[in-house]
Amino acid sequence: MSRLLFDLCAADPALRFSPYCWRVKLALKHKGLDFNTVPWRFQEKERLAFAYPDGAVPRTVPVLQEPDGTVVTDSLAIFAHLDRVYPEQPLLGDAMASARLTFIRYWSEALVAPAIMRIILMDLFAILGPEDQEYFRKSREARLGKTLEDFCDPEVGQTQLAKALAPLRLSLGEQPYLDGAQPAAADYLAFATFMWPYVATGNALLPKEGPLNAWFSRMLEQFDGFAAAAPRVI
Amino acid sequence: MSRLLFDLCAADPALRFSPYCWRVKLALKHKGLDFNTVPWRFQEKERLAFAYPDGAVPRTVPVLQEPDGTVVTDSLAIFAHLDRVYPEQPLLGDAMASARLTFIRYWSEALVAPAIMRIILMDLFAILGPEDQEYFRKSREARLGKTLEDFCDPEVGQTQLAKALAPLRLSLGEQPYLDGAQPAAADYLAFATFMWPYVATGNALLPKEGPLNAWFSRMLEQFDGFAAAAPRVI
Repeated sequence: MSRLLFDLCAADPALRFSPYCWRVKLALKHKGLDFNTVPWRFQEKERLAFAYPDGAVPRTVPVLQEPDGTVVTDSLAIFAHLDRVYPEQPLLGDAMASARLTFIRYWSEALVAPAIMRIILMDLFAILGPEDQEYFRKSREARLGKTLEDFCDPEVGQTQLAKALAPLRLSLGEQPYLDGAQPAAADYLAFATFMWPYVATGNALLPKEGPLNAWFSRMLEQFDGFAAAAPRVI
Repeated sequence: MSRLLFDLCAADPALRFSPYCWRVKLALKHKGLDFNTVPWRFQEKERLAFAYPDGAVPRTVPVLQEPDGTVVTDSLAIFAHLDRVYPEQPLLGDAMASARLTFIRYWSEALVAPAIMRIILMDLFAILGPEDQEYFRKSREARLGKTLEDFCDPEVGQTQLAKALAPLRLSLGEQPYLDGAQPAAADYLAFATFMWPYVATGNALLPKEGPLNAWFSRMLEQFDGFAAAAPRVI
């Protein structure tokens, strides 16, 4: 039995845009582990029933199924699982490093991702299949409290994003990776956030030069160009 | 010879508002080291000549002078120095933890401090002595490209600050300190940023309840209420 990762896809199953799934794909590569991805769409909640016993919701990806049958959900739980089972090449690091990662995670989720969402929302909607579009519109409009069209505002999003990027840009002006000399969990978390627009729109939404651009390019080339080889909307 | 820390003060020498100096005072307490502070004002560049050989500028505090005569400037260089000379109770942690601290540092300097500055600038100006006011106005207006009065905008600052605080609030909703179960460098860096308005205006500019408020209160009480005992403008 091989290692399987359920990975969100667009109408085109080759388009894998989920930042949470990207975190895990990069973490698996970091550990040098082989895996196959299983394309999964928003509407296919039933297919994840095996991973969410007791009817737990929401059923979302990433879901990792190990060769021994172990199933782990949630990107950060998967990081912790990988560090426990494959302790070489730590992702999270010790207790202090791991606690600081929590901060970087919430920076990416609370400051960066909402800015990107404002920019790419309608592009993202456009690459989903009709059934997923219906689900996506309903669930996101309930969460946002407005229509997708009203929320999407690329100009506002770009201003928010430029601000939110400051600590990343300044850190990468001082050290090659967020995690120091080599990438680890903080880099995968941050980089995955930009793989989302990069796959869904062809544009990572980072400056065309400077430390952010250099870091993104180096991250694309990690693991023999693993992320660079990802199909994307051009 | 005792351990000395040159510490920025207002016209009233008891008012110590510098976030960079607060970082170091908390780091020294973390290491359990005794020290005396030397009140220092913006204009007293000559008094720091011993710490900046070769005419290096800018001459700023914190400046730490160890009992053996060692002099260290710059808050993060002082953290590294303390970890090297007093390795018990690490501040920075290992290479990975330390690399992630860089990010938290730039979050506080690039996203939080500018928002606070917009809110408290004129209050801060008001507590300086006349000579320092002249220096402060000249140097800050050159840096900001506008008058202090034009830059200060508490309403805009409050909006910026509320946004910038999201990753701190979410992290502290999950763990007692940024550094996990116990505070270390990340907590001192972040907390010092709020000691700045707390001392200079009497208001730490944090929500009156919730995880941010609870963390700030716990940090005030650390080391037998060291920060809580700091004189401040009421």
